[in-house]
Amino acid sequence: MPIVEVKTRVIIEGVQPEIDGGRFPIKRVIGEEVSVEADIFTDGHESLSALLLYRSEDETKWTETPMTFLVNDRWRGSFVVEKMGFYRYTIIAWVDKFKSWRQDLIKRVEARQKDIEVNLMVGARIMTQAQQKASGRDRRLIAEWLDTLQSKQVTRKEKVRLALSDDVARLMQRYADRGFAATYPKELKVWVDREKARFSTWYEMFPRSCVPKPGQHGTFRDCESRFPYIAEMGFDVLYLPPIHPIGHTNRKGKNNALTATPDDPGTPWAIGSEEGGHRAIHTQLGTLKDFQRFVRKARDYGMEVALDIAFQCSPDHPYVREHLEWFRWRPDGTIQYAENPPKKYQDIYPLEFESKKWQELWEELKSVVLFWIEHGVRIFRVDNPHTKPFAFWEWLIGGIKADHPDVIFLSEAFTRPKIMYQLAKLGFSQSYTYFTWRNAKWELEQYFTELTQTPVREFYRTNLWPNTPDILSDYLRDGGRPAFIARLVLAATLGANYGIYGPAFELCENCRKDTVSEEYLNSEKYEIKGWDIEKPDSLRGIIRLVNKARRENPALQSDHSLRFHHVDNDQLICFSKCTQDRSNVILVVVNLDYRYRQSGWVTLSLEELKIAQNREYQVHDLLVDATYTWKGPRNYVELSPEKLPAHIFRVEKQSQRKRG
Amino acid sequence: MPIVEVKTRVIIEGVQPEIDGGRFPIKRVIGEEVSVEADIFTDGHESLSALLLYRSEDETKWTETPMTFLVNDRWRGSFVVEKMGFYRYTIIAWVDKFKSWRQDLIKRVEARQKDIEVNLMVGARIMTQAQQKASGRDRRLIAEWLDTLQSKQVTRKEKVRLALSDDVARLMQRYADRGFAATYPKELKVWVDREKARFSTWYEMFPRSCVPKPGQHGTFRDCESRFPYIAEMGFDVLYLPPIHPIGHTNRKGKNNALTATPDDPGTPWAIGSEEGGHRAIHTQLGTLKDFQRFVRKARDYGMEVALDIAFQCSPDHPYVREHLEWFRWRPDGTIQYAENPPKKYQDIYPLEFESKKWQELWEELKSVVLFWIEHGVRIFRVDNPHTKPFAFWEWLIGGIKADHPDVIFLSEAFTRPKIMYQLAKLGFSQSYTYFTWRNAKWELEQYFTELTQTPVREFYRTNLWPNTPDILSDYLRDGGRPAFIARLVLAATLGANYGIYGPAFELCENCRKDTVSEEYLNSEKYEIKGWDIEKPDSLRGIIRLVNKARRENPALQSDHSLRFHHVDNDQLICFSKCTQDRSNVILVVVNLDYRYRQSGWVTLSLEELKIAQNREYQVHDLLVDATYTWKGPRNYVELSPEKLPAHIFRVEKQSQRKRG
Repeated sequence: MPIVEVKTRVIIEGVQPEIDGGRFPIKRVIGEEVSVEADIFTDGHESLSALLLYRSEDETKWTETPMTFLVNDRWRGSFVVEKMGFYRYTIIAWVDKFKSWRQDLIKRVEARQKDIEVNLMVGARIMTQAQQKASGRDRRLIAEWLDTLQSKQVTRKEKVRLALSDDVARLMQRYADRGFAATYPKELKVWVDREKARFSTWYEMFPRSCVPKPGQHGTFRDCESRFPYIAEMGFDVLYLPPIHPIGHTNRKGKNNALTATPDDPGTPWAIGSEEGGHRAIHTQLGTLKDFQRFVRKARDYGMEVALDIAFQCSPDHPYVREHLEWFRWRPDGTIQYAENPPKKYQDIYPLEFESKKWQELWEELKSVVLFWIEHGVRIFRVDNPHTKPFAFWEWLIGGIKADHPDVIFLSEAFTRPKIMYQLAKLGFSQSYTYFTWRNAKWELEQYFTELTQTPVREFYRTNLWPNTPDILSDYLRDGGRPAFIARLVLAATLGANYGIYGPAFELCENCRKDTVSEEYLNSEKYEIKGWDIEKPDSLRGIIRLVNKARRENPALQSDHSLRFHHVDNDQLICFSKCTQDRSNVILVVVNLDYRYRQSGWVTLSLEELKIAQNREYQVHDLLVDATYTWKGPRNYVELSPEKLPAHIFRVEKQSQRKRG
Repeated sequence: MPIVEVKTRVIIEGVQPEIDGGRFPIKRVIGEEVSVEADIFTDGHESLSALLLYRSEDETKWTETPMTFLVNDRWRGSFVVEKMGFYRYTIIAWVDKFKSWRQDLIKRVEARQKDIEVNLMVGARIMTQAQQKASGRDRRLIAEWLDTLQSKQVTRKEKVRLALSDDVARLMQRYADRGFAATYPKELKVWVDREKARFSTWYEMFPRSCVPKPGQHGTFRDCESRFPYIAEMGFDVLYLPPIHPIGHTNRKGKNNALTATPDDPGTPWAIGSEEGGHRAIHTQLGTLKDFQRFVRKARDYGMEVALDIAFQCSPDHPYVREHLEWFRWRPDGTIQYAENPPKKYQDIYPLEFESKKWQELWEELKSVVLFWIEHGVRIFRVDNPHTKPFAFWEWLIGGIKADHPDVIFLSEAFTRPKIMYQLAKLGFSQSYTYFTWRNAKWELEQYFTELTQTPVREFYRTNLWPNTPDILSDYLRDGGRPAFIARLVLAATLGANYGIYGPAFELCENCRKDTVSEEYLNSEKYEIKGWDIEKPDSLRGIIRLVNKARRENPALQSDHSLRFHHVDNDQLICFSKCTQDRSNVILVVVNLDYRYRQSGWVTLSLEELKIAQNREYQVHDLLVDATYTWKGPRNYVELSPEKLPAHIFRVEKQSQRKRG
């Protein structure tokens, strides 16, 4: 084993954040901080200096920022990302001769050692090296200091005071000898999105159901008349199920019936007919021009339109005629339809990603996304990404984002945890979660602690949905209106990104098709619905208040600050979110029991929320506009499902006003 | 972004064990198992197969062993290492077409689907591909099966039974299509030591103190007469402080006095005089020949001699005259002595590892180790390795082990945790620990859980010392004999490797030099001691019993099985160790209070120890040869410091005999 030239004595390890050894980038949005920690140490007793280096991908030079020692050989530094696209970061650290010498001198002075003349000479030697690198004023300054240190006229005390001065330390840092510095061998990446990737409020709706007259097929134009209603509730993303022509072969009827009547419209996810495929628009909705107008008008209401990317085909899709190789053929000469035995989806053909013509297929699918980007769409909800190869998504999303860094992809993968995480790692901006099925306090606390307080948070941005067209949960079915409000508040405050499928949600629609599935009775997936959005018991009012609280309180616009607080009643859940400087603190309490009034004592971690221990503070309920005066960590709460099962408190530490 | 040829859909991640992304090997001894886990998954719903591949460094071909699915996409496989040196392991996994098809068929059969003729044809297609790879009997067998599947004479039921048979599954596995397999991109390493690296019992002694007459300087020959005494106690490693010539310049006197009298022998760590340096032997101990005889004789008593590697020099060391560049020179023309302000070690010069002649220095130091290897030494205790560069140790140990895989290095680094771990990662076989200062139950439980139940255990082999020539702990000083016994039992049972510094230990020597340091009064480091090893209250008898228990119970010969059990008294600690098959289970209870009798109820995890819930079992105390009958998880214990503050129970699940 030959001796290798070993240039450094410094070890840099345990770097966080770092996803899978640097294989994947962490995620941030513009204006967010990247806080980096590492174990940095050397042999012996000398002192170290460490810098965090970072740059955006289009800069060639690193920006340096100092790391500071925390405890137990752990160091931390941070920087703020200021534009979309990739950033890189790494660490450099070295044995700092001057700092080591300074520490040594301090110890000697503290031990009242007298014979430090030689030590001062050692210091002068280090300063001479720094002087050789300096120029101008700095060089002259160091020369003066060296004269003082070596002068016989100056007292020992005076020399020590100079040697330990901040001025000397600063210049010695500037001209430190980094010849033997250790550089962390990896350049770690950050992907920076626009802010909406972190904070967005989604409303999912079937445009065909915005009907002026019951039974009619709604159009984009009809749908526009619903914009004021949706915008007034405070949503900023309007997500549409597929808007493409619907196949007729093996079309499903109402409630997923195997055969359809001529009047049945079919499911929008059976994409493609003689009218066209993934680039076409279902004629009954309107034209491409209508769609573009729809997108524009939505923008006037502060809403972005999100489209559904469902890469699958009805038997009538043009691909089936033009690209036989993109499908899986069975020995009997038929194409394999979608199937998950015993379930069969005869109206849908999956694409064959492993065919010999896979490259052609991949390019085509990417061009579909680009087509809608060209037509003004910047947000895509991707249907079942976990049934297509991981490499496909990494390639597609990577390619799209390289040219369009403002595009946001939401992963609709309701599958096993590691698969959901993998999709997020390889590029999806947001992801669906298990929130929909997490109802008990311990479940919510455990799951959201994993999502927001472990390395998962670096790559997995949640988007919480209390319901979807596929999922009417047991909790909503059984609990009705109080359950809908509880789940609304949980989704909107646990998650900076959340969405509802409306108007089913705000109208508290909770009839199930059967006892074995989570499907709605008379699901909108298979028929056109006429919703009575003006119903007096609609949740639109409370939704408006919840979304207003989100807009006005930055604490609710990100997830990393989430903390659960103890309540001595398992039916009450309590958590807080706050800005980094604690200037905005939101405290949420929800009664998870939709049947009975529940009360208990909340125990807050006052120190964490920067609330004074012994002074009164106000908590202002943003839903009912009432203020309570609290004191200390333990305070009483009581919530009745029939009134309002949740508090969203803003904590007001400066007690400007007092109300009951 | 060009499309890359993506050959696999399988992800392999979260591989354990893997130290720092594969930068360092894990450690095992001959005969031990390496159990490897990984997250392995793919998109979609198909089934996977995964293999663990391993080979010793001198084999070119991998051995394959199947991995089995655990839960949540986690898989596990294992292999046993059979010789010293490096092994490598990695993982291969693929989407298994046949397994997927088989699973699909099972679902269809369970759903009582009738039209499975096409599915059977799909299966036949997969089997035809396998057939093309097979030859001989296998090929004929598959041909027969294909005939059956495609025959019109055979019933559907018969075909299904064949398709799902174990025989078919086995051959399809053998000829599986691995064309699109994923291979984990890293080859991870195992370093395999001989067994003593994991299980060893150390006795440290100063040979010069084995004096027949008080005041005389003991020789190796004198020392040999103590072999029966040490061997009878059950030690198998005899570790000697440095045996080299001791310097006289600035020699320290008794109790570390700044000036020595002509009679003071100096500390063995001030290495080197006119008589020689690290290759020489202190004349008063004997000759190199005497040393070799000493090593041989020790072996006759079942003991290996371990030497101390202390890379530092007295001012009289030949290096100082011959290699001025290997030391750090101060501006006043003197060599920098060892110093940790305000402490000064004027009798010791550290070596300068960063000098221009560092390569020459490194080679020389390595040759010192090789010199003692040539003279029969295979175990080295390395003094203060944390004050020399990490790269130096990695190079030295790596180089030595490449030619001498049986060499064991013990790291004597009492410093910050990450530095201690780093030294272990880069090659030290065993390491000192903080055990010496961990006295409370919660401290011991927390520390030993970290050492034995986290990834630390893969690279950090502990060697536990209740005392050393440098450390007489508060606990031993204050507690006297009961404290010595408690710490002996803890060291010997918590750690498969442990050692004592004797005869100070067995004679319960507990006088401190002063109140500020942990130094012994009249420390053997600075003077020759005459120990009365025949003192009637010596611990030699109990040490013999403890070491016998270790030798006879494989449970005590490794650390990975360590589990703590609850006792409702914080002065009593209880833990178990067991063999993998639970055929040998040892249960230890220690009273940590050296003043008072303590009693309490132990709660055992019976399931983990494979003890039947409702049957009586015996616990046999190996120290006092008494047996108790226990039942269920909760049992009473009581220990008096003045009698014996510890139980070492062997759990006897088959109750052959009953004694009181």
